[in-house]
Amino acid sequence: MAVGRFYLSALALFSLGLICILSTIYWMRYWHGGFAWDGSILTFNWHPVLMVTGMVVLYSAASLVYRLPQSWVGPKLPWKLGHAAAHLMAFLLAVLGLVAVFNFHNHQKIPNLYSLHSWLGITAVFLFACQWFLGFVVFLLPWASVRLRGLLKPIHIFFGASILSLAIAAVISGINEKLFFKSENGTTSYPKLPSEAVFANSVGLLVVVFGLLVLYILLASSWKRPEPGLQAERQTLLHGEE
Amino acid sequence: MAVGRFYLSALALFSLGLICILSTIYWMRYWHGGFAWDGSILTFNWHPVLMVTGMVVLYSAASLVYRLPQSWVGPKLPWKLGHAAAHLMAFLLAVLGLVAVFNFHNHQKIPNLYSLHSWLGITAVFLFACQWFLGFVVFLLPWASVRLRGLLKPIHIFFGASILSLAIAAVISGINEKLFFKSENGTTSYPKLPSEAVFANSVGLLVVVFGLLVLYILLASSWKRPEPGLQAERQTLLHGEE
Repeated sequence: MAVGRFYLSALALFSLGLICILSTIYWMRYWHGGFAWDGSILTFNWHPVLMVTGMVVLYSAASLVYRLPQSWVGPKLPWKLGHAAAHLMAFLLAVLGLVAVFNFHNHQKIPNLYSLHSWLGITAVFLFACQWFLGFVVFLLPWASVRLRGLLKPIHIFFGASILSLAIAAVISGINEKLFFKSENGTTSYPKLPSEAVFANSVGLLVVVFGLLVLYILLASSWKRPEPGLQAERQTLLHGEE
Repeated sequence: MAVGRFYLSALALFSLGLICILSTIYWMRYWHGGFAWDGSILTFNWHPVLMVTGMVVLYSAASLVYRLPQSWVGPKLPWKLGHAAAHLMAFLLAVLGLVAVFNFHNHQKIPNLYSLHSWLGITAVFLFACQWFLGFVVFLLPWASVRLRGLLKPIHIFFGASILSLAIAAVISGINEKLFFKSENGTTSYPKLPSEAVFANSVGLLVVVFGLLVLYILLASSWKRPEPGLQAERQTLLHGEE
């Protein structure tokens, strides 16, 4: 992978992620009255924005840290710390996104966690919490053996990609669900494909394209750090560079 | 990958796929009155069954043909033919599943292709058609050069995995959507989480687990045919074993 091509692709991907976030904000502002934190429907409006930002875009950026060519030379520990810190921020945004929807539901006496969308989404966030905690214990704290780290790394990568896939499926079903709610509430109905539906459906497709590109870069070997053997796996928070 | 472990995993995966199909049939029979082909809602009921069977389970089985250890020795052409034939069957089931929903919509004067679910699903089936056609032309007909085949193989695999991911996201949003329709029609509503909702949500999660396992087996190198060089890529329909 030539470095120039890498940066061009990274820039394109970054722009696509930004478009996903901005268009979700635009959807909520233009068609749903914007944002507040008062238990009303305006509180709910934070939910799609925070989930797309945290669980999809920032999560992806955090996952792709090791695809930066700079991370391929020199000590791995700073990159591990960056990977963990960015994922922690993504996780906090996702939790805030959940708080927004629970807060709205509780204020409006709407049951929580009944739809497949919510089951899938909460599974993704739960797995994300486990993944972050296990990743921290095994790859950053010093007591896991190099052999254990080698064993767990492919599982860590598999669950990382799976959590992103779950998040994208949750986003898709969430957008679909939200557009049916709007239709129930008596405004122009979804089957008549009003401009909001065209816009939000397109946001859904953009999120899918973004997610597939991220998964490709994450899993295709041409984008990976050339494996420097076990040395890098040894670098942990306390031992530094052994 | 030990052969014994492979067969055990394949059996477990096959059983899971079968459970996905059977439970979709059960959902449509027990809660939605079964099947017919008369333009009524009973025609629609074929849609989820045929999409899960064609776009998820049979598609996955067809994709995993090269993971069978028997395919790793001897000529590759019979396996290529099996791969193409099984995918063609999966595609035909998916098309039949689309005909079912279009037929129902047209009879009931419901618009087609308005929801994000339908946009995503139709994109998946369209890409599947392109993928099959291109795969046939490049990998089975004899005129593509070995270099072109080598170049297109990773793209073929990427789109293969992407189409399955799109199909799974479409299934999830479809189940979610169907359960909201039922709630609109005045029977026990989705937010009260009736037994149907618990059952269908669980089917959705099963489909996701099945899909993630298939993607893992498809993409993890330990499951892949040991690369025999370019010889196998040369085997096509007309040239046989060059």
